Amino acid sequence: MSSELYKVVADIKPVSREWSVKARDYLNQLAIPRGSLGELLVLAEQLSGIKETLKPSVKSKVVVTMAGDHGVVSEGVSAFPQEVTPQMVNNFVRGGAAINVLSAVAGSRVVVVDMGVAADLGALVREGKILSYRIAPGTRNMARGPAMTREQAERALESGIEIVGSLVRDGVELLATGDMGIGNTTPSSAILAVFSGRPVREVTGRGTGISDEALENKIRAIEKAIDTNRPDAGDPVDVLAKVGGFEIGGIAGLILGAAYHRVPVLVDGFISTAGALLARALAPDSVEYMIAAHCSMEYGHKFMLEDLGLNPLLNLSLRLGEGTGAALAMNIVESAAQVICEMLTFEAAGVNGPEV
Amino acid sequence: MSSELYKVVADIKPVSREWSVKARDYLNQLAIPRGSLGELLVLAEQLSGIKETLKPSVKSKVVVTMAGDHGVVSEGVSAFPQEVTPQMVNNFVRGGAAINVLSAVAGSRVVVVDMGVAADLGALVREGKILSYRIAPGTRNMARGPAMTREQAERALESGIEIVGSLVRDGVELLATGDMGIGNTTPSSAILAVFSGRPVREVTGRGTGISDEALENKIRAIEKAIDTNRPDAGDPVDVLAKVGGFEIGGIAGLILGAAYHRVPVLVDGFISTAGALLARALAPDSVEYMIAAHCSMEYGHKFMLEDLGLNPLLNLSLRLGEGTGAALAMNIVESAAQVICEMLTFEAAGVNGPEV
Repeated sequence: MSSELYKVVADIKPVSREWSVKARDYLNQLAIPRGSLGELLVLAEQLSGIKETLKPSVKSKVVVTMAGDHGVVSEGVSAFPQEVTPQMVNNFVRGGAAINVLSAVAGSRVVVVDMGVAADLGALVREGKILSYRIAPGTRNMARGPAMTREQAERALESGIEIVGSLVRDGVELLATGDMGIGNTTPSSAILAVFSGRPVREVTGRGTGISDEALENKIRAIEKAIDTNRPDAGDPVDVLAKVGGFEIGGIAGLILGAAYHRVPVLVDGFISTAGALLARALAPDSVEYMIAAHCSMEYGHKFMLEDLGLNPLLNLSLRLGEGTGAALAMNIVESAAQVICEMLTFEAAGVNGPEV
Repeated sequence: MSSELYKVVADIKPVSREWSVKARDYLNQLAIPRGSLGELLVLAEQLSGIKETLKPSVKSKVVVTMAGDHGVVSEGVSAFPQEVTPQMVNNFVRGGAAINVLSAVAGSRVVVVDMGVAADLGALVREGKILSYRIAPGTRNMARGPAMTREQAERALESGIEIVGSLVRDGVELLATGDMGIGNTTPSSAILAVFSGRPVREVTGRGTGISDEALENKIRAIEKAIDTNRPDAGDPVDVLAKVGGFEIGGIAGLILGAAYHRVPVLVDGFISTAGALLARALAPDSVEYMIAAHCSMEYGHKFMLEDLGLNPLLNLSLRLGEGTGAALAMNIVESAAQVICEMLTFEAAGVNGPEV
């Protein structure tokens, strides 16, 4: 592991038990039947533990949508052509995509990052409309060899960490992950299969909506990628290098950076949660900074959430990515923060407690 | 039925099939894998059908929290003393309650209505801080006779309708229901038992968190109320009069008013959904204007949602009332509206469609 990456991973600590307990005690005094705000109370406690305060603020929000391409698309694993990745990046820049619309409702910024799109996005970078942490014009075909080198995998992780560092300096208080990359459910299923030991067939779904035949191609390609590359589940950088993607590594880096800087991070759907599996494998305590935004319709997502021990906030049959589920969940996280920041206790509100 | 109530009920029409179909066709052209925004697309179609446009706006939002007291509390059915109802109304006015905090995050106003609290709230009414549609200082004990007269039940329903009329004249585009009333899970369970024919024991839960003994009292009180009063499930006004509550009737009226004025209405938890059962019984088409905000932890709520055929947006283990679940869901409804209003189609965004 490179020294920068090693330093961050080694410095990730659990959230504060002391502040979690303080928060729980305080929440139990609010003028409501005990526990009646359900998951909002769980979230409020988590936010207090992360930020070490009873007044956690998550008003300054950003969705980081990471884009990358995948050599494995040549195996016929996706319903859409590869050109759609840069086309959608352009749509993000124009503000016409779902992530733009949902982030606007949530009061969040969107930062789009080129992690390795197979097209020239230089003009958008020069105009300051997207960030470039471009590693290569797409990964190589993992069915025939490693998707990327070990050094590229480390760079992808470090890019995410670096982006969070700069956002935190700008005052960001709540982070959300997002992805764009035609073919990227394929490496995500591969990562899940490697870490969980589940059969590829069991964790591979239809992504953007492929035919039965393409699904068989996809399963074969993943099986071949794992057989050919023999990723080492005990070495997360090896897993990312062999069967990952640039944007997936970037997302894992975002999560590690969030945990390092003690910022809560909303993890979006299947691709983002593949990043979360990598982050957890590198730094087990990072999972305490994660908030699972939703459970995706993409088949393997529920296994990922189960393995991470995360309870998704939303279940709205989404399967889009971009960070859309995370953007939708921001309002719930902000509500939880405001519950602990603004609500009155029984005593302060002059409300009688329970008598039975 | 009084003539005003009869007129509104008779005038409630289904949502527009024509606009629903137009919306579905348009949503299928958005630059996303078909159907990948799940429930947001279902909601967007519903909003278009309700408002007869492909550009439905729900920016102007209000939660109406209706308060009332219940004579049946003398049977020992609640964990909290009756004084808590006016104390919480005061907390709403001060802005220290959950509904204030969650509505603020959602960008919604809160309107608090005294439908029949067993305390003098006249000062708050004169200061313009709450509305008064006060019917009586609490219902009578339904375990010993009808909770209210038929005329009072009609007035409760008409109050809700009148409030919506005035909010619609002010430009409100999205309505949400809320309740406050110590003891009000008791009439709500009774209403569910009467309409569904399910045994009282099966539809009665612990409300704000009562003991085993109090739960037995509560079940007995509901059984006695139904035995004594023999509410006629075929006559919703009779059900409300015999085993209902003023705020529950008010909420049913809000829903009828919303359907009449073609405004979508977010239905909160157990008490609000008891109101929804009454509204549907009076005007079956009103259900097409309802959006189930969440599934409450209060035991019988899932049966109500099932019987209404509604799929709740959130599942956050809430059991508070006040309109809190509805306020939390507003952001999702607004997101759905913005999806159809603002997102670009494949053609407009210059994005290739699927090829496989």
